[in-house]
Amino acid sequence: MLEKRKPIPVDEAVRRVSEYQKQGKTEWVPLEDSLHRFLAEDVKADHDVPAFDRSPYDGFAVRACDTASATREKAVRFEVIDHIGAGAVSEKELGPFQAVRIMTGAQIPKGADAVVMLELTKTDEEGGKTYMSLKRPFKPGDNISKTGEDAQKGSSLLKRGTKITPGVTALLATFGYASVPVVRKPVVGIIATGTELLNVSDPLEPGKIRNSNAGMVCAQVIEAGASPLYLGKISDDFDESYEAVKEAMKKVDFLLTTGGVSVGDFDFLPAIYQRLGANVLFNKVAMRPGSVTTVAHADDMLLFGLSGNPSACYVGFELFVKPMIQTWLMNDKPHSICAEAILTKDFPKPNPFTRFVRAFVYHQDGKLAASPVGLDKSSSVTSLAEANAFIILPGGTRGYESGRTVKVLLIREENGSEWPWTALSQSSKS
Amino acid sequence: MLEKRKPIPVDEAVRRVSEYQKQGKTEWVPLEDSLHRFLAEDVKADHDVPAFDRSPYDGFAVRACDTASATREKAVRFEVIDHIGAGAVSEKELGPFQAVRIMTGAQIPKGADAVVMLELTKTDEEGGKTYMSLKRPFKPGDNISKTGEDAQKGSSLLKRGTKITPGVTALLATFGYASVPVVRKPVVGIIATGTELLNVSDPLEPGKIRNSNAGMVCAQVIEAGASPLYLGKISDDFDESYEAVKEAMKKVDFLLTTGGVSVGDFDFLPAIYQRLGANVLFNKVAMRPGSVTTVAHADDMLLFGLSGNPSACYVGFELFVKPMIQTWLMNDKPHSICAEAILTKDFPKPNPFTRFVRAFVYHQDGKLAASPVGLDKSSSVTSLAEANAFIILPGGTRGYESGRTVKVLLIREENGSEWPWTALSQSSKS
Repeated sequence: MLEKRKPIPVDEAVRRVSEYQKQGKTEWVPLEDSLHRFLAEDVKADHDVPAFDRSPYDGFAVRACDTASATREKAVRFEVIDHIGAGAVSEKELGPFQAVRIMTGAQIPKGADAVVMLELTKTDEEGGKTYMSLKRPFKPGDNISKTGEDAQKGSSLLKRGTKITPGVTALLATFGYASVPVVRKPVVGIIATGTELLNVSDPLEPGKIRNSNAGMVCAQVIEAGASPLYLGKISDDFDESYEAVKEAMKKVDFLLTTGGVSVGDFDFLPAIYQRLGANVLFNKVAMRPGSVTTVAHADDMLLFGLSGNPSACYVGFELFVKPMIQTWLMNDKPHSICAEAILTKDFPKPNPFTRFVRAFVYHQDGKLAASPVGLDKSSSVTSLAEANAFIILPGGTRGYESGRTVKVLLIREENGSEWPWTALSQSSKS
Repeated sequence: MLEKRKPIPVDEAVRRVSEYQKQGKTEWVPLEDSLHRFLAEDVKADHDVPAFDRSPYDGFAVRACDTASATREKAVRFEVIDHIGAGAVSEKELGPFQAVRIMTGAQIPKGADAVVMLELTKTDEEGGKTYMSLKRPFKPGDNISKTGEDAQKGSSLLKRGTKITPGVTALLATFGYASVPVVRKPVVGIIATGTELLNVSDPLEPGKIRNSNAGMVCAQVIEAGASPLYLGKISDDFDESYEAVKEAMKKVDFLLTTGGVSVGDFDFLPAIYQRLGANVLFNKVAMRPGSVTTVAHADDMLLFGLSGNPSACYVGFELFVKPMIQTWLMNDKPHSICAEAILTKDFPKPNPFTRFVRAFVYHQDGKLAASPVGLDKSSSVTSLAEANAFIILPGGTRGYESGRTVKVLLIREENGSEWPWTALSQSSKS
């Protein structure tokens, strides 16, 4: 009954999961609801930005050639023949020594090829006409935002798989995307297992703990860009549990379970995978925490069997689930970024397996510093509240001293990586 | 009519705004709705974690003293007197050479002081009893997660002003926070100005542009942790505009306007502030873009007059509005972090004022690299889509060459800074 499990390297495990990657379909949502969604289509400029030569300042549009003789001592005077606000277009064309009063953002009138800032001019009235004088010369093109200088018609602006940020929103608005093609969010079902689990609202009981994984994983699912569907706690009865998993698979795009993958009495998941006829991609990973993490594939769906230990569950999600959600969302950099950081504390434990140490990473003297946080055990829950990175200590290494350079996986950084494991296969420098 | 505005340094402008900081009140929300909200109260451990000595593995609880003579050649045999799952508590107490079968997370039974992993044992049956044998000795405390090792009762776990992440969710669940005290989100009213503005869904017209600021600023408000309330475009009529601002102030905690702060014909904001009897904190900042950014205070409310130029508007929000929202949310590090990065491209322009160059910052060889993106003009919209940082080039400097170290403001990093401007007053190293 006690099967012998063969651990596989972390990068091999991630690679096996990624073989079953899928991409979501497109849906259209209003621009105001699109923040943090992922674009399902490339966005190209369908017009120049600016769409016309325009003034970046409040001032006067002039012909640069008329300003050539202006000096501090001898001003040149222009007749103001029109006055245009932003959004308006002058119908007049400038002749010699004529100027048009122009607002920021307004279209440059015909004949003009420079703009003089209001602050550099003086105006006066004479015989019912308005005049403007200036005391320095301007070159053709001075203070003109040229058509297409920000974006040229036809140019590629955003790739599909781009996360919609405030800056992306501005660009989409500029190009008239009142409705935006985004990738449908995958629904990620979550089933908890564990006879020791109380609800969050329950008072503590001897031998029991409150269920912290369900809420945590739901939050991770949301941050990864998907919709969580919490399906409750699995029964202690095998057949009921099997049916619950079967039913869940009809409603979701990915299925996560927390706990139930080890060798305890109620660790039903291995047997459930077997009865489903699932292809078990691995059931042991050479890593700490989370070595029992199991991923299977059945009915065209990935089934993620995460550990029931909070830290192990958290790590398993970040390594295996998040990249699959991000790939679904068409992000071509679906993994967390791997960077280098200086270890700020000794880490004396040996590392028989690759170890992911929950850490707080911060900027110091132009580099990253990484500080292990909380208790380094798979059961730890406090370490998760503070962690924004995992320090990666390769398997087969001894303790690490403060001051050494280590690799860190930046799990809370917005930008992702194509494949951080290449960087990791190089040994870290000391 | 053309007032002379006196530019003030950026840090002085930020400091003046921060004199009017406020903190929000507490409201309680269900844990499952609390992701990315900010805690309004400190969280202390009201019990130890673990709350009892527990087993980190599936295996057998034993008395370590009984294992002393076990060797590879000579196993020691134990009678298995009970079998407890996680969540159950054994009522038995171990005597000599007795063991209890125990699951991961289960409470250590009385008398036991070590746990042997299942993989290291053999079981057999004899005379209706179950026996377990092992071939190596264990020390007292081996494989026991001690009461309070993760968190001790009474210890401080989370400070008010902490952003609720998945890891924080796990901790809140552990301590029974089915409902969580969070800071009420401030409502941030947004009014657009600009006669040239079309709606996003409108076709382009000569001389006009689509309103990209409103959606962008709404998105920035959401990311900063507040609730945006878009109040539409202001009229071209001064009295109507004044009334619109007065009405808006009744509904919101902060009021933003985009555009209308310069010296154009419809730049009503200075006159509106005057009629409101507002205290104008500044109306010119020695920075590019966004020098016309104006902040006023009236009726106990901050009124942010952001530029109508997209890049200038974006920068003004990040520098002045975001820290006030974050302070309201009790975050004691409300500003963006300032770090050092290596410039990857020449930036030849001189910097009469402090310049904020939209940039993409990434990790390279253990350092940050900063690459200017898009067009560096206040009117640019494309540069915002890609930017995750501002390169800060101090006023009074000339161009910067590729390879130089520059300061960067990490506007999209989750963790904040108390006051980044101290670091900035030191001149940057080359």
